[in-house]
Amino acid sequence: MASPSSTQTQSRSPEIRKDPVNNRWVIFSPARAKRPTDFKAKSPQNPNSSSSCPFCIGNEHECAPEIFRVPPDPKSDWKIRVIQNLYPALSRDIGCKKDGDPDAEMRCTGDLGRVVTGFGFHDVVIESPVHSVQLQDLEPREVGEVLLACKKRIEQIKEYDLIKYVFKNHGASAGASMSHSHSQLLALPVIPPTISARINSTKEYFDQSGKCCLCEVQPKDLQIDVTTHFISIVPFAATFPFEIWIIPRNHSSHFHELDNEKAVDLGGLLKLTLRKISVQLNNPPFNFMIQTAPLQAIDTQLAYIHWFLQIVPQLAGVGGFEIGTGCYINPVFSEDAAKVMQEVNVPK
Amino acid sequence: MASPSSTQTQSRSPEIRKDPVNNRWVIFSPARAKRPTDFKAKSPQNPNSSSSCPFCIGNEHECAPEIFRVPPDPKSDWKIRVIQNLYPALSRDIGCKKDGDPDAEMRCTGDLGRVVTGFGFHDVVIESPVHSVQLQDLEPREVGEVLLACKKRIEQIKEYDLIKYVFKNHGASAGASMSHSHSQLLALPVIPPTISARINSTKEYFDQSGKCCLCEVQPKDLQIDVTTHFISIVPFAATFPFEIWIIPRNHSSHFHELDNEKAVDLGGLLKLTLRKISVQLNNPPFNFMIQTAPLQAIDTQLAYIHWFLQIVPQLAGVGGFEIGTGCYINPVFSEDAAKVMQEVNVPK
Repeated sequence: MASPSSTQTQSRSPEIRKDPVNNRWVIFSPARAKRPTDFKAKSPQNPNSSSSCPFCIGNEHECAPEIFRVPPDPKSDWKIRVIQNLYPALSRDIGCKKDGDPDAEMRCTGDLGRVVTGFGFHDVVIESPVHSVQLQDLEPREVGEVLLACKKRIEQIKEYDLIKYVFKNHGASAGASMSHSHSQLLALPVIPPTISARINSTKEYFDQSGKCCLCEVQPKDLQIDVTTHFISIVPFAATFPFEIWIIPRNHSSHFHELDNEKAVDLGGLLKLTLRKISVQLNNPPFNFMIQTAPLQAIDTQLAYIHWFLQIVPQLAGVGGFEIGTGCYINPVFSEDAAKVMQEVNVPK
Repeated sequence: MASPSSTQTQSRSPEIRKDPVNNRWVIFSPARAKRPTDFKAKSPQNPNSSSSCPFCIGNEHECAPEIFRVPPDPKSDWKIRVIQNLYPALSRDIGCKKDGDPDAEMRCTGDLGRVVTGFGFHDVVIESPVHSVQLQDLEPREVGEVLLACKKRIEQIKEYDLIKYVFKNHGASAGASMSHSHSQLLALPVIPPTISARINSTKEYFDQSGKCCLCEVQPKDLQIDVTTHFISIVPFAATFPFEIWIIPRNHSSHFHELDNEKAVDLGGLLKLTLRKISVQLNNPPFNFMIQTAPLQAIDTQLAYIHWFLQIVPQLAGVGGFEIGTGCYINPVFSEDAAKVMQEVNVPK
């Protein structure tokens, strides 16, 4: 971030932006930026050797138990597997079963803390049997199948009353090191703070305007691509450089409302977006996350909760300023990132 | 994070904790942990060469303008310099001067966004003239002088009505690469979301109990060291492994209320804490941040805002799960980290 600014960007003043979705301040600071087109990953994804990869077909015995596979026939080769995480952050063996065990409810410890038993699910979706195949290499229909496998697992988990939220993340977690294409599903007995903040913020917008802020027409200069059912944009107050959201064009609160037709459409747009990121930004590691409604969101909330995919190329780390304040510094204005993404040519 | 768990920690179930200060959920997940005593930095601080360091004494001409130095005599050698950041995230040249220019006030852009002009200060505190001297190498009195230099700069900045909050961070920011010991001071025209959330959370605690939650006696098993005016603890719901807070024992809202005597006392405890971290965790990079009250906090707020230093050794990155949810996974229970820190022997 200490590289000299270009004359192109030097002329712009920094701005601090807030969007109504996350209610989070972001400092857009062009003086600390390269030109938007110069952004590249420092360390592109570097798929490790498949020789010892437990996610590869044939190595299933090295993994924690399978939950289901696609196609379901256990004798045929699989295309997608949903398995338990070998080192789960939460435990499926404590707390409650489907009928609700009060042991897993919140308890207080003295005056100063509150504790919830760490009941939950931490699953892995292996997105391809082949080590070297990345998500963007799949056909739109196949990317759709991965999304539908996530949907199926969420629908299984929502039978557990104590689970409040399912978060799905593709890509590097802190310390994760598996290069074989996969996602993690974390089913939590609490609603995470970022999701609570988003719901509060979109409610405020709804109360003021009568509208869902993600149903609103996005400004042209932030749009990247549009399909039958989805639109990709750089959000007005993007937290990270080249952060992209893929949003359903019609109001929908729960990701697991996705049907087969929309899954293929979304699969195509996700593939296109990931290829654009790969070409433009030197194949960076990235996260894509499903930002959806809490499982037990009530009807009045559904009017202002609109699910979307959040894609974050990993171009900069998160440092003390971001950790300590919750403010982020983004060196690329959202409209500049969107312009680059509109113009990038993806080879056929 | 995918290392096998030890038998010692395997017996504990994960817990999800929330503390009343940050109102943030943290998953304590021992199944993903090494033993607490095995935590070490993967890449210890590796001070780079001083040959081209602009922060070293003699290279002042390579820096952005100086704001002040300690001691103030421009002809004598300095011990501490406060300078402008060469690549500031915010601009001191736009918006308002002390008398308040309406250009820098918030404006709305259409329905979907709000913008504040990026007016602010982004300064650097050079903590020693010598490249190889780390903060923990200084005498308690000298560490105190660094803290008093921060205080002095905050008192200068608070004359600007549009500045709402000053955040001080020592250590790596995203992309930062200077190994010469320094801190950054960011003076912002907005109150950052983490600070707003903390104020709301401690207000809730105050409304329920009539007490400031950081004035409450901390449980013995979370305490590390106690001095005349300060106490160091691992917070009950520490976000990061071996996160440590240093808290004034008597209620105080603003860091800049620190007086000379308390600065020396705090300097000693900060030095001791950093040395313990260095010995126990293999000299990791770390952040230490001042978490203080907004400059214009009103009297009723001051009753439940209690400033503290937050020290975070950088032992794990921040990944998609943390970014997407605001939940953090901490593999080391707070009381285990505190026990390690109580027992570590610091060489004289």
